[in-house]
Amino acid sequence: MSLLVVGSLALDTIETPFGRVENTLGGSATYIATAASYFVKPIRLVGVVGGDFPKEAMQRLETHEVDLEGIEVVKDAKTFRWGGRYHFDLNVRDTLFTELNAFQHFNPKIPESYRNTTYVCLGNIDPVLQRRVLEQLSKPRLVVGDTMNFWISGNNVELKRTLKLLDVLVVNDSEARQLAGEHNLIKAAKGIIRLGPKIVIIKKGEHGAVLITERTLFSAPAYPLEDIYDPTGAGDAFAGGFIGWIARTDDFSEENMKRAVIYGSTLASFCVERFGLDRFKDLTTLEVKDRFHEFRELSRFEEGDSSTR
Amino acid sequence: MSLLVVGSLALDTIETPFGRVENTLGGSATYIATAASYFVKPIRLVGVVGGDFPKEAMQRLETHEVDLEGIEVVKDAKTFRWGGRYHFDLNVRDTLFTELNAFQHFNPKIPESYRNTTYVCLGNIDPVLQRRVLEQLSKPRLVVGDTMNFWISGNNVELKRTLKLLDVLVVNDSEARQLAGEHNLIKAAKGIIRLGPKIVIIKKGEHGAVLITERTLFSAPAYPLEDIYDPTGAGDAFAGGFIGWIARTDDFSEENMKRAVIYGSTLASFCVERFGLDRFKDLTTLEVKDRFHEFRELSRFEEGDSSTR
Repeated sequence: MSLLVVGSLALDTIETPFGRVENTLGGSATYIATAASYFVKPIRLVGVVGGDFPKEAMQRLETHEVDLEGIEVVKDAKTFRWGGRYHFDLNVRDTLFTELNAFQHFNPKIPESYRNTTYVCLGNIDPVLQRRVLEQLSKPRLVVGDTMNFWISGNNVELKRTLKLLDVLVVNDSEARQLAGEHNLIKAAKGIIRLGPKIVIIKKGEHGAVLITERTLFSAPAYPLEDIYDPTGAGDAFAGGFIGWIARTDDFSEENMKRAVIYGSTLASFCVERFGLDRFKDLTTLEVKDRFHEFRELSRFEEGDSSTR
Repeated sequence: MSLLVVGSLALDTIETPFGRVENTLGGSATYIATAASYFVKPIRLVGVVGGDFPKEAMQRLETHEVDLEGIEVVKDAKTFRWGGRYHFDLNVRDTLFTELNAFQHFNPKIPESYRNTTYVCLGNIDPVLQRRVLEQLSKPRLVVGDTMNFWISGNNVELKRTLKLLDVLVVNDSEARQLAGEHNLIKAAKGIIRLGPKIVIIKKGEHGAVLITERTLFSAPAYPLEDIYDPTGAGDAFAGGFIGWIARTDDFSEENMKRAVIYGSTLASFCVERFGLDRFKDLTTLEVKDRFHEFRELSRFEEGDSSTR
């Protein structure tokens, strides 16, 4: 099945207590596509870069069999740049700079050959643009979208219009709370379901992820990593692993969605093991499979003789 | 098998956004014993109260088949009183007052008939007193202990002496981090294991709990409650459910420990559904069993065809 990813392509400068990298390939679409490429190829990616986008970055995308047709190159503009610094508590991050550059006037144009795409993942971009993507598609089977606090507080009306068109919303816990205006995460998810998406997936970082529908709840543990080098892109890698598995299996039954959440968690757990996208340079599908199985052991228990008095 | 619980007995005044109760039965030993009583009876409880401890409170303990022999009544003192106020975010709590009263000079005396107890749960009291309890016992098979930030920062030397004598330490995530001086929870748990306990259980509230040994990790989800009325005692109810199940089955294999974590999570999830100990007034063993099984469904997924390209 075909997968379309729309979002940002960026050059990131990242500082963590463990080191610093400058102008490394980043952006939501990049992480989503890279993670999804473990399940489905090629990946259709729509995004924009400047004339300064390095040839090696383009080659990295090609290594993951990202189709480059949908990447617009604005020759006389610079590529979107983002800088962030993580604290000793890696859950806390300061944004050092955001230079939108070519991304500022991003207006996603879906190539003719992509319009019949069956699965879509909308990275965290302006909800107006997310909608514009969907308007250009014939009839995708499943649309997964991400958003962030910036749009929740800054463009709530447009975001709510877009939410009506999503099948699955993937957000982190604070975004879910903010979007629903509700502290309890279960209630918050149900509030979001009333806004449109049939399924809400809440990413909780070191605490795992939950998938919530009107009828069910599935709780995925986090993979117990002792060394996390760089959390950048983990949420997007999660979304990519999730939609990648769904697109590969062409099965969006509840049971398969649960597996997809575990594959999302698997890809996110690899993502944070090194800086930026570095871990994906040599990550094999065998490693992905093995960790998927380890996830099962993490939360498995035998009921045994459960008689109580 | 026999179970001894040592800790505080208190009269709590609790304010949450959903209401207020005054002088309701509380204290770590009370919650631990009440939760454990769903698995093993009678519960041997050692604690101290004042002459003002209400007859109804004593009767409540008897209802849960708590043996009252070990409860010391200091006639001319008042019972330990604690007052707390929870914020809209129930994870945030202000202590309004702490009147130690009779508890201030608590010196646990283990009745002769309790000294052969096989399972022990030490509630959160001065680590010096926790040790004094153990010195009076012949040879318990498993000792579970709790502690808190007050002792970690205030009496670290004594706490570390006590840790050497515990088989299982049950703490919340911030306590684990503080005790080990390490932000990463997995590393923190391993640091604590080097201090003595073979098993560390980290309670993460709405994010569930993890059991960590030198070799394994087990992640238990939290039960998805939409309405949490009062978090007071949830951690102690967890410890009580955990040790209660172990004592009932007399099996501390790793596999059974995992079940015990789920029973702990089960009892904690009931605890927060009403104020103080109110939920336990009519909680049946059938409800406990049912929720235990629901926990399994929460994190269960079928591996299916997990082939990746």
